[in-house]
Amino acid sequence: MKKVFIIGCGLLGSSLVRGISKKKLAKKIFIYEKSKLNITKIKSLRLPVTIVKSLKDGVANSDLIIFCTPMSEYKRLILKINNFVSPKTIITDIGSVKIKSSKIIKKFLKKGIDWTQSHPIAGSEVSGPEHGKDNMFVDKWCVLIKDQKTNLKHLRFLNSFWRKVGSKIVIMNSEKHDQIFSITSHLPHLIAYNLVKSAKDYEKKIKFDLIKYSAGGLRDFSRIAASNEIMWRDIFFDNSQNISKAIDIFVKNLRDFKKDIRLKKNKSMISKLTKAKKVRSQIIKLKQDINKPDFGRSN
Amino acid sequence: MKKVFIIGCGLLGSSLVRGISKKKLAKKIFIYEKSKLNITKIKSLRLPVTIVKSLKDGVANSDLIIFCTPMSEYKRLILKINNFVSPKTIITDIGSVKIKSSKIIKKFLKKGIDWTQSHPIAGSEVSGPEHGKDNMFVDKWCVLIKDQKTNLKHLRFLNSFWRKVGSKIVIMNSEKHDQIFSITSHLPHLIAYNLVKSAKDYEKKIKFDLIKYSAGGLRDFSRIAASNEIMWRDIFFDNSQNISKAIDIFVKNLRDFKKDIRLKKNKSMISKLTKAKKVRSQIIKLKQDINKPDFGRSN
Repeated sequence: MKKVFIIGCGLLGSSLVRGISKKKLAKKIFIYEKSKLNITKIKSLRLPVTIVKSLKDGVANSDLIIFCTPMSEYKRLILKINNFVSPKTIITDIGSVKIKSSKIIKKFLKKGIDWTQSHPIAGSEVSGPEHGKDNMFVDKWCVLIKDQKTNLKHLRFLNSFWRKVGSKIVIMNSEKHDQIFSITSHLPHLIAYNLVKSAKDYEKKIKFDLIKYSAGGLRDFSRIAASNEIMWRDIFFDNSQNISKAIDIFVKNLRDFKKDIRLKKNKSMISKLTKAKKVRSQIIKLKQDINKPDFGRSN
Repeated sequence: MKKVFIIGCGLLGSSLVRGISKKKLAKKIFIYEKSKLNITKIKSLRLPVTIVKSLKDGVANSDLIIFCTPMSEYKRLILKINNFVSPKTIITDIGSVKIKSSKIIKKFLKKGIDWTQSHPIAGSEVSGPEHGKDNMFVDKWCVLIKDQKTNLKHLRFLNSFWRKVGSKIVIMNSEKHDQIFSITSHLPHLIAYNLVKSAKDYEKKIKFDLIKYSAGGLRDFSRIAASNEIMWRDIFFDNSQNISKAIDIFVKNLRDFKKDIRLKKNKSMISKLTKAKKVRSQIIKLKQDINKPDFGRSN
């Protein structure tokens, strides 16, 4: 590639910059970043990029454009790049919800231009370009969306591109994507935010500084609940239907648990706990987590 | 101390053995362990202990007895040690729920014998003596229970004992204890088990192997849900009232979140997410977790 243009250079955008640069996948990396603070950081990090002030300069003659902004920015940005994009340019994004964004793309992107969606399953609770790393995508899944209108040439290109930055590829349609991640990612994040909120509410109620004793469970949830609020608001809003269904399943199961606890139903409780416990070994076996007690944390 | 007797030598019992031995806090450590598998492990680990086959041999002339078994074992064991205990012996336990166990102790322990409850806030998702470590309690909170009938001499001894194995001490009554840990530990564990169960239910429903894509949230919960099922059944049953109240707060808040998502209430959502996010910095500041993104996990 001669030129790649990354729109939004936070945690994941800057990780892409580093990964692309390390693997020498492009001659030039251009970035567009709205936040002045991030631009200052990028400059002081000396990332190997050309920072553009107008989207036009970034889009012109790009081989690949990657949207790394919150999804709520897509519409505004699409309307701005429409005048400059070429049908030859491959456009993708890294958004965590696909049905909603594909509708926005379909509605606002200029006719004749293709946009092929990606979703690398990578990230962290910390935000900003200073936390990016060149191996962010290594051995992580990257979902590529294939729907009826997908440009197969672009899909093949992206398949190869993500493999080069280290990802393992899985291809699925946007419906399946949004269903799966509503339960493996979106609901867990909502639950984590909700648990931390509930703990704070309880703290107020009993007037006791309980966060201090959070070592036993709450602290793990607090990590997930520390994630970027704009990004997660967008995810919750954009995948609201699937998440609502997931909440319903979750609440139904929680009621069952509460009933077992109230009635001291031993057999039913042990069976539930044992089954849930087994999933951990499955996750370790699938190399979705490291096989060290307590995540290998030293304290 | 001349003699300490540890009843139950799994993860925490064996950690106590190692900690006591390292700090040379006792001349002899005796242990009683029901599981043949654990005894084989303890022998091959060459832990510096005398394994007793009868509780009588362990109890006789002990300065300190520490119960490190699941709480559902207390009644059975108390009835067995009653004939041998001396009023001089300090007895404690490491159980995670205090009101229920204090009732059992009061009901079944021989009159004239004191039992002073401890709760070191330490543990892991893995079980068994092979995972124990001598620094398990270092810099961790240890709650000591002080109720109306607490033997203050024994309390002072335990305060000093837990400090010597590295803990920070906090003293409270059993009501406050069970309230606090219902929200910082018991509810989070229940939620983790429930989330993993819900993911498995969803997997069956959509007939798709979604655990494979659990990197994005579910994997953190799966760690907590991998904890020992006997221990957690006991906790859920023994602290059922506080946990039920915590579940109600949690479900109410989750309904609020669901409503915000459905109605796309931007301001309310951002406010909730931002507030929850702040708790993480509080937890880091209080040294309840390490200050590394993603727990310092390398994958």
